[in-house]
Amino acid sequence: MTDTEAEILRRLDRIESRDEIRQLISKYSLALDMRDMDAMAGLFVPDVRVGGGKSGREALRAWLDDTMRQQFDGTAHHVGTTIIEFTDPEQAVGIVYSKNEHEAGAEWVIMQMMYFDKYERVDGRWYFRRRLPLYWYATDLNKPPIGGRKMRWPGREPYEGSFHALFPSWTEYWDRSGPEAGPLAPPAPLEEFIETMRRGNEVHGNRVR
Amino acid sequence: MTDTEAEILRRLDRIESRDEIRQLISKYSLALDMRDMDAMAGLFVPDVRVGGGKSGREALRAWLDDTMRQQFDGTAHHVGTTIIEFTDPEQAVGIVYSKNEHEAGAEWVIMQMMYFDKYERVDGRWYFRRRLPLYWYATDLNKPPIGGRKMRWPGREPYEGSFHALFPSWTEYWDRSGPEAGPLAPPAPLEEFIETMRRGNEVHGNRVR
Amino acid sequence: MTDTEAEILRRLDRIESRDEIRQLISKYSLALDMRDMDAMAGLFVPDVRVGGGKSGREALRAWLDDTMRQQFDGTAHHVGTTIIEFTDPEQAVGIVYSKNEHEAGAEWVIMQMMYFDKYERVDGRWYFRRRLPLYWYATDLNKPPIGGRKMRWPGREPYEGSFHALFPSWTEYWDRSGPEAGPLAPPAPLEEFIETMRRGNEVHGNRVR
Repeated sequence: MTDTEAEILRRLDRIESRDEIRQLISKYSLALDMRDMDAMAGLFVPDVRVGGGKSGREALRAWLDDTMRQQFDGTAHHVGTTIIEFTDPEQAVGIVYSKNEHEAGAEWVIMQMMYFDKYERVDGRWYFRRRLPLYWYATDLNKPPIGGRKMRWPGREPYEGSFHALFPSWTEYWDRSGPEAGPLAPPAPLEEFIETMRRGNEVHGNRVR
Repeated sequence: MTDTEAEILRRLDRIESRDEIRQLISKYSLALDMRDMDAMAGLFVPDVRVGGGKSGREALRAWLDDTMRQQFDGTAHHVGTTIIEFTDPEQAVGIVYSKNEHEAGAEWVIMQMMYFDKYERVDGRWYFRRRLPLYWYATDLNKPPIGGRKMRWPGREPYEGSFHALFPSWTEYWDRSGPEAGPLAPPAPLEEFIETMRRGNEVHGNRVR
Repeated sequence: MTDTEAEILRRLDRIESRDEIRQLISKYSLALDMRDMDAMAGLFVPDVRVGGGKSGREALRAWLDDTMRQQFDGTAHHVGTTIIEFTDPEQAVGIVYSKNEHEAGAEWVIMQMMYFDKYERVDGRWYFRRRLPLYWYATDLNKPPIGGRKMRWPGREPYEGSFHALFPSWTEYWDRSGPEAGPLAPPAPLEEFIETMRRGNEVHGNRVR
């Protein structure tokens, strides 16, 4: 193999990987909305961590089956805005916006949220290592989510979502009274946009269910 | 040409094909929303089948012009969740979510649906062979589509959509009373996610207009 | 380097470029929604033109910070339908649908719009040269945007958006009373779909703020 061929194969692997991950994200929506819990669970790494100290695809399947069954008569997860970036050839992170809709008894709950994803390649295939949901609002179709505590599920106390919690820029923006005056930061390197925006920040106390 | 080059060209063709199909899907939305019926019809194979025993791009152009004109003052087709999988180098299937909005006289009708697509390469270019629309709901912006018969167009009898009709998992999920207990199905092979979920199932009696 | 390798590298550059631009579009949404004005400004060419005869990333940062601050308590820009086409290896145009939501005091303003983008490669990286927003409607979640002047911001005179202004097909469609009878236009060449639909048309008098 020539050096040029080696370089081409490396670039081809990268573009194929991003494409496979992009499809992985959409497969999750379809599998979940069609309640194919086996298909859904198979999109995660075999040792995926589930709540309550459990792990593995079977535990995830049981947990999500139950979550869906108790709350919803139907759902749609409509993905949009998507950034996928590689930390090395076998691992990547992603931000994925999703507009979710839920039929929940007498209420039709609309939602805008994003996932902060970690992807991992295992035996040549890309999987979710983790999906961290960050919610902006959940509210009835007829009730604009104005004001605080925008997570308004029927029959539950409203609470704050974590839509802005991953990125320090949100708080800094509101702490200022006008445009920043300092020198402009240089553009983030390719594959480092999310991490540059995140600055090592983590989300704490996020409610996911 | 070396073996490595041949392999590279095969992989490059695949990734270019998926990219071209992804753009094809968005071209359909734009052409339809802008009522460029020639641009829209040119996205389908020359011998596309239209209702009533007709076929061909000109018949499709006439049918969709009429469908739009009779019902809508304006539309937007906002695509999201997308899976495209190849059955061979010249044919592919796809699932594409679309959030459609329609100005229909005094009602503003919102819709969540998906297309089950078949794509085909003809003379080096990718086209739609068929788009099968599967609707979840159509309803006025102010009327949550709670309950049965969610297809609620102004001035017409409401009816059931076919959003869940392609995938057997939906009915099976509701036939159970809790999580499946059996062994987990292995992840579907790449390029076979849709067909694995579909299990050869077909949709019958789907109303498209 | 062989001729085959040169051809492969050319095609690889094209597919990588489209992928990078696709991510650029989503980076804009995320940076804007998280109010990371430095990250947002860094997505544009260094000499980007801003209103009022100004130019440059710092001017853009100041302008968008102010625009967001005066009007909105929060936003989400959920991109969908996307077409990216290259006019040469270093320049491209795009159409990108975005469903935007805005918390604006006591109103929750939903919006369907598209961007008509120009992209440019500078020193090996893709940037926005220009984003032209074309709005269909902006209205409170509870107020269907039926009829004329669909741009209905709280406390302002409603006005017409420019959603259909770029493409001559919209006016021609409504000037006819039924389907076009003439011969069908051939499919647009690859990379020329937008320009074929646009036919050199420009948008005049577009209000962007």
